[in-house]
Amino acid sequence: MFQSPPIPPMAQRAALLEAGEGRESPAWPGEAEAFPVEAVSRAMRRVLARRAREALQYGPAEGLEGLREWVCAHLAGQGLRLRPSQVLISSGSRHALDLLGRVLLDPASPLLVQRPTRLGALRAFRPYAARLVGLRCDEQGPAPEALADALPGARMAYLQTRFADPTGLAVPEARARELADLLAGSRCWLVEDQTYGELWLDTPPAPGLLARGVEHGVLVGSFSPLVFPGLRLGWVAGHPSLIARLAQARRAAELQPGSLSQWVLLEMLREGFVERHLPALRERCRERRDAVLEALRRHMPEGVAWTRPQGGAHLWLRLPDGVDAAELLAPAGREGLPLLPGRAFDAGAGGCASFGECSQCRFAEDPQGAAPTRHALRLSFAALAPRAAEPCAARLAQLLRGQAPAAWRPREPATVRDAPRLSLVRPHPMRPA
Amino acid sequence: MFQSPPIPPMAQRAALLEAGEGRESPAWPGEAEAFPVEAVSRAMRRVLARRAREALQYGPAEGLEGLREWVCAHLAGQGLRLRPSQVLISSGSRHALDLLGRVLLDPASPLLVQRPTRLGALRAFRPYAARLVGLRCDEQGPAPEALADALPGARMAYLQTRFADPTGLAVPEARARELADLLAGSRCWLVEDQTYGELWLDTPPAPGLLARGVEHGVLVGSFSPLVFPGLRLGWVAGHPSLIARLAQARRAAELQPGSLSQWVLLEMLREGFVERHLPALRERCRERRDAVLEALRRHMPEGVAWTRPQGGAHLWLRLPDGVDAAELLAPAGREGLPLLPGRAFDAGAGGCASFGECSQCRFAEDPQGAAPTRHALRLSFAALAPRAAEPCAARLAQLLRGQAPAAWRPREPATVRDAPRLSLVRPHPMRPA
Repeated sequence: MFQSPPIPPMAQRAALLEAGEGRESPAWPGEAEAFPVEAVSRAMRRVLARRAREALQYGPAEGLEGLREWVCAHLAGQGLRLRPSQVLISSGSRHALDLLGRVLLDPASPLLVQRPTRLGALRAFRPYAARLVGLRCDEQGPAPEALADALPGARMAYLQTRFADPTGLAVPEARARELADLLAGSRCWLVEDQTYGELWLDTPPAPGLLARGVEHGVLVGSFSPLVFPGLRLGWVAGHPSLIARLAQARRAAELQPGSLSQWVLLEMLREGFVERHLPALRERCRERRDAVLEALRRHMPEGVAWTRPQGGAHLWLRLPDGVDAAELLAPAGREGLPLLPGRAFDAGAGGCASFGECSQCRFAEDPQGAAPTRHALRLSFAALAPRAAEPCAARLAQLLRGQAPAAWRPREPATVRDAPRLSLVRPHPMRPA
Repeated sequence: MFQSPPIPPMAQRAALLEAGEGRESPAWPGEAEAFPVEAVSRAMRRVLARRAREALQYGPAEGLEGLREWVCAHLAGQGLRLRPSQVLISSGSRHALDLLGRVLLDPASPLLVQRPTRLGALRAFRPYAARLVGLRCDEQGPAPEALADALPGARMAYLQTRFADPTGLAVPEARARELADLLAGSRCWLVEDQTYGELWLDTPPAPGLLARGVEHGVLVGSFSPLVFPGLRLGWVAGHPSLIARLAQARRAAELQPGSLSQWVLLEMLREGFVERHLPALRERCRERRDAVLEALRRHMPEGVAWTRPQGGAHLWLRLPDGVDAAELLAPAGREGLPLLPGRAFDAGAGGCASFGECSQCRFAEDPQGAAPTRHALRLSFAALAPRAAEPCAARLAQLLRGQAPAAWRPREPATVRDAPRLSLVRPHPMRPA
C-alpha cells in the first residue's frame, strides 16, 4: 500500500528536545482554591478603568518600567543596587533561562550546574548543546573546591542559592562568601536562580552570590510564587551588557511580554498584594513541609534519608543504595503522587549527586556515568495538602518494601520512632549485605 | 585610572542579534482609542467569575484546547481540515517564527524568503544563522521559476500569501496553485505567514498554499489584529510532527503561554467578538489606505511608484532610481512618520527586490549585493489617521525634492492629477539623465 514520504529534515537541535510528558514543577504551593481571584479582579478593573490603552497596546521589549523598578526595590533587600535598565521582565523564570542560554551558550560551552539541579534548567539549556559539568554539592551548596576546579574556561555557572530545587536548601553566609570570591575572580558568567527565593519557611536566607561583588552575573526570579502561576512573568537582573543582549534576544524572538498581564501584575504589586499575601503562603508551605517531614519520619525505613527544606517547594530523598527510583516510581506515577525520579535532575556528568560518597552504590559502575542520582527522588511537598502527606509517605514505603532487598526491609511504621530524621542526606547508612 | 575588566565571552549567536531600536511594526491598525476596552472588561469579569482557577493556574504547553479548536474552525474557511492537536498557540506570530527557526534551521540551512519580506521574520530567523535565499517577486508573489530554482536542498520556504508585509499584496489563485505544486513536490518545509490574513480591504483573498495539498508545512497567524496587540498570542498550525516538535521547543523555553490572557481571548472569541469587530476594523483600514493612496497620488513626483495594498497594514514605495531611502528618511525618522527604509526588508542575497529589473539602479553594482531595496521604503498606512495621510505624503515629497536629481524634480503637487497611480511598482519609469 501507499506510504507517507519521510518528513523533510529538521534542525539538529530538534533532536535535543525532549518529549517532556510529565509536569515537572508543581511550583505553586497551594490548591487553586487559594488563588487570589479577588485581588486579580480588582487589579483588572482598575487597569481597564485607568490604563486601558497601555494595557492593550504594545510595550517595551524589556517589560514595563514600573515592574523593573519593583524588581530593583525588591533586590535591594539583598543589598543589590540596580537600576531599572539592569532588569528585563521575562515570560517566567524558565524563559529567562532560555534567553540566557541563547545569549551565552555555544555548542560545547562548559556550563557548571549543581548536582542535583533544577530539571527545568536542564531542559531550558539542553537545546544549546552546552557541555554540562556537574558540581559536587553538600548540604551547604556547591563544594568550593569543585567550583574552583571547574571555573577555568567555564562559560556559565548556573547556581541556585535561595532555594535549590530539588533539595529545598539555601547556601549559608560563609559558603556564599567563598563561592562569590571564586566567581568574582573568574571569567565565567554567574546565573543565580532565586525562583523560590521569597518562599523561606523558617528564617530569611543569607543574601545570594550576586550581591557579594560578582560583577559578571545576573539573578533570575519569578512572579509565579508571589502572585499566581498562570501569569508567566519573571525577571532577570544584573550586568548591563548582558541585560541589553537579553533584550535583543527577546525582541527577536517574541517582541515583548503581554501588556495586559504586566499591567495587572503591576497594579497588584503597587496595591501591596505580595506583602499581604506572602506570610500566609509561607505558612501554608511550612505546614505542608512539616506534615511531609513527619510522615516520612513515620514511614520511611532505615536506609532512606531526606533533606529538611528551608524554602521552596521540594525535598530530595535518597533511597536505599541500589534502589532505582524510576523503577520504584513507575506505579506511583500513575497515581499522581508528586514524586519524580532523581536522575531527571542530574547533569549526568559523572561524580556524585547524592551529597556524599557513592562508592558502594551499584550505579557508580554505570558506564553512562549518569547514574548516582538514580537512587534519589524529588518530593514536592508544597503540592501535597497536609492530609495527603501521610498516604503519600505510606505508599512510598509500600513501594520500597516491594522492591528493596531484605536487609532494608523496614520495621513496621508504627514502631519507627527512631527512624532517621535528617536535616540533610547522610552518606549511605546501610548497604546491601 | 582603573578600567573595568573586559566582559567574559558570550555565545557566537549574540553577535547576530540586532539592537533593533526602531519599532518595526505598527501592526495594529488604529489608535488606542479604538481598543475594545469594554469587550475585554466583560470577558475578564466572566472568566474570573466562572473559570478563575484555570485562568490563574498552569495550562498546556500547546495552549488552551478551546483556542486550538477555534483556529481549526477559522482555517476551515481556507479549506484546511486540521485537528486541534495540529495547532500550537504561540506568544504572537513572531514567537511562532522563532520556534520554527529553532526547530528547523541549522547554521547555513538554505532559507527561502520573498524579496522584500517581513522585517520581523528576518529578525526572528537571524540568530539561527541560516543562509537566506531571496526569491524574486512580482506583483503576484514569488516568481515560480525563482522558487523552482531555489527549492532543491532548501530547508524552509518562508512565504507570505495573505498579505505580504511590506507590499500589502496577496498571492492570487493561479500563482498559488503553481507555487503549491512546486512545494508539494519538494523536500522543503513551507512556513506560510498569514499574520494579516483577515485584514483584507477589498475582497477576501484566495486560499493560501498549505490549503492546496502541501503536506510538509505550517501556517502562522496572529490574534493581535483580531483582538488587540498587547495580548501577544498567535498560532502555528499544520504538520503534526512539526507541531509536536514546536511544542517541545516551547515547553523547554517558556513552558506555556500565559493562562489569564488565553482565557480572556477565548471568552472574547466565544462571545463573537471577532465577527462583530472585523468589519469595522477593515473599514478603518480601507479608509486609511485610500487616504494614503490619494495623498501619494497628489504629492509623489514621477519616478516614484507604489503598491496598492489589498490587505494588511503596509505599502511598498519605490523611490526614483538611485535615491537611498535610508538617507532620505533620516530626518523623517525623527518626526515619527510611519516609514522604514526598504533594505530592512531585504534578505540581502542578491537579485532584485523591487519587482522588476534594476539594471539601471546605481545600487545594482553594490558589491554587497544587498542594495536593490535601498531605493524603496515601507509606508504603514494603517498607522496614519486619514487626516495625517496628506501631511505625510507632502513631507515625503519635500524630502525627495531635497535629494533627488533635477530630472526627477516634481511638478507642483496641485497640478499632478495625472501622476502615476500604480497598483504595483513598475520597472523604473525614469532614470537619471
